[in-house]
This record gives sequence, C-alpha cells and structure tokens, in this order.
Amino acid sequence: MAKRVAVVLAGCGVYDGSEIHEASAVLVHLSRGGAAVQMFAPNIDQMHVVNHLKGEPSEEKRNVLVESARLARGNIQDLSKLSVKDHDAIIFPGGFGAAKNLCTWAVQGKDCSVNDEVKAALQAFHSEGKPIGLCCISPVLAAKVLPGCEVTVGIEKDNKYPDTAGTAAAINQLGCTHVSKHVGESHVDEKNKLVTTCAFMCNAPIHEIFDGIGSMVQGVLKLA
Amino acid sequence: MAKRVAVVLAGCGVYDGSEIHEASAVLVHLSRGGAAVQMFAPNIDQMHVVNHLKGEPSEEKRNVLVESARLARGNIQDLSKLSVKDHDAIIFPGGFGAAKNLCTWAVQGKDCSVNDEVKAALQAFHSEGKPIGLCCISPVLAAKVLPGCEVTVGIEKDNKYPDTAGTAAAINQLGCTHVSKHVGESHVDEKNKLVTTCAFMCNAPIHEIFDGIGSMVQGVLKLA
Repeated sequence: MAKRVAVVLAGCGVYDGSEIHEASAVLVHLSRGGAAVQMFAPNIDQMHVVNHLKGEPSEEKRNVLVESARLARGNIQDLSKLSVKDHDAIIFPGGFGAAKNLCTWAVQGKDCSVNDEVKAALQAFHSEGKPIGLCCISPVLAAKVLPGCEVTVGIEKDNKYPDTAGTAAAINQLGCTHVSKHVGESHVDEKNKLVTTCAFMCNAPIHEIFDGIGSMVQGVLKLA
Repeated sequence: MAKRVAVVLAGCGVYDGSEIHEASAVLVHLSRGGAAVQMFAPNIDQMHVVNHLKGEPSEEKRNVLVESARLARGNIQDLSKLSVKDHDAIIFPGGFGAAKNLCTWAVQGKDCSVNDEVKAALQAFHSEGKPIGLCCISPVLAAKVLPGCEVTVGIEKDNKYPDTAGTAAAINQLGCTHVSKHVGESHVDEKNKLVTTCAFMCNAPIHEIFDGIGSMVQGVLKLA
C-alpha cells in the first residue's frame, strides 16, 4: 500500500514562504517513491510579504494557506484539519516561511515560539513513532519541539555559510545535536525518526539540492 | 564552455503564472546539464490574480516580473533586457501564465496576440538557429509565431484530456503540425530547432512530468 505522507507548506517563495524548489523536489521524490501525498498549511497571515525582485518587504498582506495553494495547484487543506492517524509520515520543506510563519525563529532565534498547529503535528507524529522529514531551516522546528534530537543544516565549520554555523550553534544551545552533512546527504536520527538535509542552507547548484532532498525523502519513506 | 540558457517566466502559480513544478524541473535539469541560466519575465501586470485555494480570480493586482522573482529567488531580469547574442538557447515553462500573460491564448485561442517582447525573442532565437524549448501550453507561442512548426501538447486522441485535443486542433488550424507524444517524451522539430513536451497538459504523476521536462531540456542542450 502507498505510504501516506503529509507535506506542510509555509507560503510560496523563499523570502516569505516555502522555498519553491525544495517543496517541488519533495513532491517529485515522493511521487517517484509511490507515496500518496496530502498538503497542508496554516490558515494565518504571513509574517510579511517580501517583494522578491527588490528583496524588500512590501505593504501587502497575504495568507499562508492561500499562497501555499500555488505550490499545491489548489489541492491543499487547512493545517488545523491534519490528523496524525491519516498519515504515515510528515515532511516540512524549508525557506524563510518556515522560520517566519511556522515559528518565529527568523526574529527570535532559539528563543522563538512555534505555531500551535505545527507544534502539535510534530509532537503527534513523534509520539506515534512516525517519521518526520525536514530540510533547509525547518530542522529548527524539530530542535525547538523535540528536546535532544539530532539534525543537520549543513557543514558547521564551512566558512562560506555563516548562517549554517550560527544556526548549528543555536541548535546545540537548545540541547540538541547538530550533525554536519554535505548538501547531497541527509542525516537520520534513528531514535527520533527524524530525517534532515541542508538544501538551500548551502548555496549549491539546484540539482545537488534536489538530490539531497531525494536522500531525505527516501529516508522518510524507508522509516514509514 | 557552459551552454547559456535564458528561461522566460510568466508569474508564479499554475492558474495565473508559470506552473511552479515545470519551472523548477527546467532549472534542475539545466543545472544537471551544466548550463548557465539567466531568468527573465515581462515587467507587466498579470492578466489577473487567481486565489489558488478557491480557484477563483481575486481583486488583487500583481506584476509578472515581481511574482516570477519568487521562482528565481530574486535573480531575474526584465524581459526587455534579453539579447539573443548572450544566450545559446531559450526555454518557456508552461502554466496558464504563458497563455494569459505572455499571450492571450487563454481568452482568444488561435486568434490570440503574443506579447511583443516574447514574439521578438522567439523570432530572434529562431532566425539565429538557436534552440527553443517549450512545455505544457507554451508550445502555442511557437505555433503562433513560427509558421509551419511542429510541436506536441500531449496525445491528441486521448479522451481523458479534452484540452489536449482542442489545443492540438487549434495548432493544426494555424498551419502547424501537432505531434502526439506521451508525458515522458519530447518532440524535436529539427528544422526549426524546437523541443516540446506536454508536462501538466497531461494529468500524470509529477515525477513523470519531471522526466518529460528532462527529455525536453536535454534535447535543447543537445541542439545548442
């Protein structure tokens, strides 16, 4: 029987929503793996809207669920409707939306709060022993909600990407363990059934990011 | 030396812009093929904005270049800046944006007009003998601008997809030749150096669409 996987989106666009190419790669790899996918997003306003041409916030307001529906071609549900019993696994693509709309990491770092529905979903899948996949900045959601877990956001001592070193340090300060992994790899925390990959936390060619996400998705399907 | 490929976007979201997963697949396959990519979009208002959750037009206004920048992670230029001499090939992903913002096919079918910059780009690459890749509904741009060309938008006699049959008939009425191809395949018009694949014109699993776009991108790089 097909593995049933929930994918949680956070808008549509790297600077204020889900990173588009990460979300698309997740869906391509889940499809190739024969999974049955349902997409979800919280029905809330985005933290803000970023004009991606200028790289600056605009005055607009947009809704996370409505914008996420662009990635889902309309086939998406309110995250409040997510029930752990209907799914064998859950995956969170990255992008600033994960750190702005699913939690407040972009503003408050390790002292952030996590959206109640996102927190409940992570706790429910974890306590049922169902695997959780995360990429890019999304692993901070696990680090905040699941004490002592292991995740990767890239190569910690890579001077090219100071974001990675800072994020890894914050993860360790939360009592979790950051594990350095290259862009094409994923890290599996067997105990917590967490699979993570750095994706666009590393400024690699997009096909390498695609392959790293493939490794993460395959890891999730294997544990499901 | 890396092949230099221009990718022309039409917004961000299947119902009023570029189909996100098609655009992402084009970029992944170009990256794997070692191409150097520059993205472009016209600096014009979208025909309209569709709320992708409801599947209905909203009252908002959005700009094609600004929304396309979401797919390009900010790294995109005004289509008016595109110069054929700087590129070895050009690719147009699909989605309704191609039929609403790059031409008026969505409203007028074969009697549509084509955006001046899009028309100029197609004519310039064609007259220089540089290959042009198109997928989904975008092949109608070639059918309208390049008389007598051959393109595919899927399997013509497939009763499951009436859009394909109607679009194929309109292409033939324009004096072009529609060639039936499955979702994982592309059609190469050697004379006109056009490579086309049906992508989401066929309601196939997303990994099959990804592979069909791979076939199109590889065909374009081979001709470049």
